[in-house]
Amino acid sequence: MKAGKEQDDIFFMEEAIRLATGHMQAGDGGPFGAVMVQNGEIIARGWNRVTSTNDPTAHAEVVCIRNACAKLETFDLTGCELYVNCEPCPMCLSAAYWAKIECITYGADHLDAAAAGFNDAFIYEELRKGRGDRTMPMKQLLRNDALQTFKLWEEMEDKLEY
Amino acid sequence: MKAGKEQDDIFFMEEAIRLATGHMQAGDGGPFGAVMVQNGEIIARGWNRVTSTNDPTAHAEVVCIRNACAKLETFDLTGCELYVNCEPCPMCLSAAYWAKIECITYGADHLDAAAAGFNDAFIYEELRKGRGDRTMPMKQLLRNDALQTFKLWEEMEDKLEY
Repeated sequence: MKAGKEQDDIFFMEEAIRLATGHMQAGDGGPFGAVMVQNGEIIARGWNRVTSTNDPTAHAEVVCIRNACAKLETFDLTGCELYVNCEPCPMCLSAAYWAKIECITYGADHLDAAAAGFNDAFIYEELRKGRGDRTMPMKQLLRNDALQTFKLWEEMEDKLEY
Repeated sequence: MKAGKEQDDIFFMEEAIRLATGHMQAGDGGPFGAVMVQNGEIIARGWNRVTSTNDPTAHAEVVCIRNACAKLETFDLTGCELYVNCEPCPMCLSAAYWAKIECITYGADHLDAAAAGFNDAFIYEELRKGRGDRTMPMKQLLRNDALQTFKLWEEMEDKLEY
């Protein structure tokens, strides 16, 4: 018999896989599902809705993070655990950092995702490169003007940091 | 006198900086603004709304991409150019790849953002590391079950790829 935490992990991952499969078959988007857990309870779910909502950022994890934050009325998910049927792409992993998620449990990995036709591995490679070596052309302009806004931010007294 | 494209670039960047400053001062969130340009025209705007909407993914670029996609009714922004007052963080840069954006023009860079108190540089460093070396704990579970969903995806005949 498996210990409680391990049993819970399997339960949450099975739910993430179920969401991925069901919503893919319903035509919502790609085969990805996620659940957010706080204190051993599922507090939010998410699944890929890129094609059905015309939103390239609507990956399962991003949707799940947004739903969890809406429910808890906070932008800080400290203490929350994310379960997802596939290793997050760089967008979703970065979103997990911004949300201050505690840990991530994933099923397939980003190479499995690449084998299934998704760009995860390519984007991981691109982010490891310096700006000038990427396929995405990037150009800097008006840095000094832009820095003025940061200066105003630093001087702002009643700001809410994140 | 500057050439047309260079003048346009400055105009779009000034608008991104104006959005960043104005919405920061209005209390919407951090000091970030973005505009999306298609065929020389601004088709969408975005600004950081993390703290005012309790959404850690509501960075200026993500909001701008979502607005542009809603307007054009597509998840594919091929041919569109993104102007933002600061180099995108890894979440936003990845979102730009997923959206198939043509190129990015930025003002301040991610080290400037770090100096102003944002985690961009830290997350770039984390993404360059292997899974086991990151501060974010990540654990794999039920890979074989997860792969079944990908198999179903590959076999699906009427799927909409992205």
